[in-house]
Amino acid sequence: MSRSEIAAVNRQFEDAARKADLDRLASLYTPDAMAFPPDGPIVKGRDNIKQMWGSVAQQMGLKDIRLSTLDFEQAGDTGYEVGEATLTLSGGTAVVKFVVVWKKVDGQWRLHRDIWNAKNG
Amino acid sequence: MSRSEIAAVNRQFEDAARKADLDRLASLYTPDAMAFPPDGPIVKGRDNIKQMWGSVAQQMGLKDIRLSTLDFEQAGDTGYEVGEATLTLSGGTAVVKFVVVWKKVDGQWRLHRDIWNAKNG
Repeated sequence: MSRSEIAAVNRQFEDAARKADLDRLASLYTPDAMAFPPDGPIVKGRDNIKQMWGSVAQQMGLKDIRLSTLDFEQAGDTGYEVGEATLTLSGGTAVVKFVVVWKKVDGQWRLHRDIWNAKNG
Repeated sequence: MSRSEIAAVNRQFEDAARKADLDRLASLYTPDAMAFPPDGPIVKGRDNIKQMWGSVAQQMGLKDIRLSTLDFEQAGDTGYEVGEATLTLSGGTAVVKFVVVWKKVDGQWRLHRDIWNAKNG
């Protein structure tokens, strides 16, 4: 059941990214989430994660993102996902691999730790 | 208790890396572990992870590694750690941030998912 719940949140994530709806994107993270963009420090909390996505979207010209879950395991109210994301950017396409630690907060699965890096050198 | 157990495994990891003991390094991962080196595909299983560390050690001239745990949360036999690693390389020092999903297998905590990226651009 949780895997389908997480898939639903991932579809919301894609939709929010496509529409550059940064508030909605940030709301899919836990309040004390951490994101780990390559070549920068750890980003903590929804406000900072919202700003990070704003910068990423602007700098890279993010137009679309597709998330593909390769593996998901659950332990109580925590789950961890392995996947790949295909980003459509103004300059072309980038593929990244990621690990997301999910946490169920107030009955909803939210991204709690979000780290990625490039799939190709 | 688990945080100290994981710290002990991290000290073993550092020691094995320093001695380029790839078998011992690989043994600290679960049999079905996945590692996510930047700029490459997902690496699955101990044998492939062993080879990956051999390549990394050789290509980068890895001399020393220091792991620093910034956060650890546990959910049953799973835990997830956030940290930073300082690598002493032949050409200088590199700092990476990482997320490790730990899993307790046969009574021992082992790295199950291991992903990192550069802290500085």
